[in-house]
Amino acid sequence: MTEKREYTDDYQDKTLYIPGPTEVREDVIAEMCQPMFGHRMDRMTDLYTTIVEDTKEFLGTDNDVMILTGSGTEIWESSTLNLVDENILVPTCGSFSERHANVAERLGKNVDRIEYEWGQAIKPEDIREALESSDKQYDVVATVMNESSTGVRNPIEEIGDVVAEYPDTYLVVDAVSALGGDYVDIDEHNIDVIFASSQKAFAMPPGLAICTVSDEAYERELSKDSASWYGGFQRALDYYDRKGQTHSTPAIPIMLAYRKQMKHMLEEGHEGRDKRHREMAEYTREWAYEHFDMFPEEGYESQTVACIENTQGIDVAATIEEVNEEYDMAFSNGYGSALGEKTFRIGHMGEHDVESIKALTDAIEDVADL
Amino acid sequence: MTEKREYTDDYQDKTLYIPGPTEVREDVIAEMCQPMFGHRMDRMTDLYTTIVEDTKEFLGTDNDVMILTGSGTEIWESSTLNLVDENILVPTCGSFSERHANVAERLGKNVDRIEYEWGQAIKPEDIREALESSDKQYDVVATVMNESSTGVRNPIEEIGDVVAEYPDTYLVVDAVSALGGDYVDIDEHNIDVIFASSQKAFAMPPGLAICTVSDEAYERELSKDSASWYGGFQRALDYYDRKGQTHSTPAIPIMLAYRKQMKHMLEEGHEGRDKRHREMAEYTREWAYEHFDMFPEEGYESQTVACIENTQGIDVAATIEEVNEEYDMAFSNGYGSALGEKTFRIGHMGEHDVESIKALTDAIEDVADL
Repeated sequence: MTEKREYTDDYQDKTLYIPGPTEVREDVIAEMCQPMFGHRMDRMTDLYTTIVEDTKEFLGTDNDVMILTGSGTEIWESSTLNLVDENILVPTCGSFSERHANVAERLGKNVDRIEYEWGQAIKPEDIREALESSDKQYDVVATVMNESSTGVRNPIEEIGDVVAEYPDTYLVVDAVSALGGDYVDIDEHNIDVIFASSQKAFAMPPGLAICTVSDEAYERELSKDSASWYGGFQRALDYYDRKGQTHSTPAIPIMLAYRKQMKHMLEEGHEGRDKRHREMAEYTREWAYEHFDMFPEEGYESQTVACIENTQGIDVAATIEEVNEEYDMAFSNGYGSALGEKTFRIGHMGEHDVESIKALTDAIEDVADL
Repeated sequence: MTEKREYTDDYQDKTLYIPGPTEVREDVIAEMCQPMFGHRMDRMTDLYTTIVEDTKEFLGTDNDVMILTGSGTEIWESSTLNLVDENILVPTCGSFSERHANVAERLGKNVDRIEYEWGQAIKPEDIREALESSDKQYDVVATVMNESSTGVRNPIEEIGDVVAEYPDTYLVVDAVSALGGDYVDIDEHNIDVIFASSQKAFAMPPGLAICTVSDEAYERELSKDSASWYGGFQRALDYYDRKGQTHSTPAIPIMLAYRKQMKHMLEEGHEGRDKRHREMAEYTREWAYEHFDMFPEEGYESQTVACIENTQGIDVAATIEEVNEEYDMAFSNGYGSALGEKTFRIGHMGEHDVESIKALTDAIEDVADL
């Protein structure tokens, strides 16, 4: 039983290098402090159409965009409700892809997994093999772009090209911790649904999920006997077309922050952010190779989260604690009991750059005596 | 097709008398402007256990509380997924209760309605009659406490007493615009699930839904073959018991605002807020009778939203516009095309009091020349 632990108003702020939430610019935070307004006022139409159209422009997609109040998990659930009658194929390579499968199972769907050892990446040819050889009609292949638990970046572009050969199978991509920091051409690779959370590489406060929806996925939902309402593509997109607003009351303060941050993101551009994140990933990888090893299969390292193998047997928990105390910087241990001390993770996403990542790796070197 | 309408940064703030979002205290707004922290840090446990336990105390319930990032619609959906195998009984008396039925239908459930004319209240004896006479097993009776479209306050206490006679039928109450401003003894009347949205009588920014769950509803979900994950009672409550946190990344800034406002609410108390809201409702009703008439069935007028019948044939849209322009106050027309000019609505909830409501009615008198 959890006991109440009173929130105290006197916390030391920490620079966030965890795999999200990440650092948010001060001018983005400040946007939230405005008196409330109504979600059916013209002002809301101005706000919501601005953030939707700016997001489309940033992502460079012709697909529709919906921005939903909730976490990425909500889109795992609604996209399954919206697109899957019975069968869904889920390659699992870590905690988040496994959870995507669990969500679908809890909804009563039939889930077939392609299981990879943690640290390994999903292989497009395995998906082709499964789609070709199964006598089941898979409504959806659900895959993760960036497996935050293992630091693996899956080849979703190639996976998209494979799934595109099966027109009755829709591709849903969990890009929660990737989009905004790792370039992907959504339309070129026929990704029907791809979603991210605001607090990761978009570098906004948490509370919103960003989702793109292809025309085919929209039509598929329309034709289904059952679908989500809150996370329904049709509900959200039709309401947008008619009113330029959300169908339910949204988290207006987070949307105000979103507007500001999206202007910064447009200024840097999708490819510019991709480049900066690649540089951070390369720096962190080189640092890891110098002192430790990388956990993910070579060639599939994430561009936003480094999962570093603790080959030196440092005390990960103690190092995290001491870096936190001495440097006011927060980074993460490995995911779960199996990897908790065997790996550690550095989120290099959002507002960070090589210099700020180097400040963390210097601190780790100091504390762990590397 | 919606066109982008750029958000401009130079809006005139309006005092909100719409049926939500409503006015939020400045010190509550200011809470949101803090640097981000991680949703798995101890600081988050402090924050989330504080707001959950304070909410339990405010509501005076022994049931569990979950605070979910999303709108009330999300709980319509998840409670249906969590509790309904096949049959749900929905008394409909306005737009929001009808939508609750529509959400369940879109999820593929069998929905039986008890339809009331708009403005009429749900009668407990009709629910008893339906439960007694049907050969169906209704898993859930889903009812609305405060029908914002018609300004009707339904007798959910008596409805609760009726449904309690049917132990395999669970009672789900949409109290989106009531809870926090209209007293209800949740445990005494066996309400299994009742939920509200943060931006209504709780007077917080939008983005969170507050939900209480009985032990029986929790057990019912556990025993089901399928349920929601994001809005799953088990997911949320077990995670709270184990970690004192939310299972998915929540809208941290809104939770910071929530903590502050809940302290104000505890200071005033559930019954104190009830009394203040009753006084606002009585004042508004008397004013309405003096100049117009009330739309809801007598004896069932809402304590948080007055729906006033436009017996004088004033130009509602023009009056709203002029009050908005001249007094910077926003109130609402009737809901939808049928009631748009036939009624108008004043939200008297949250931070308002009789004096601030009188400022609005004075403005309406001035503009409409009453």
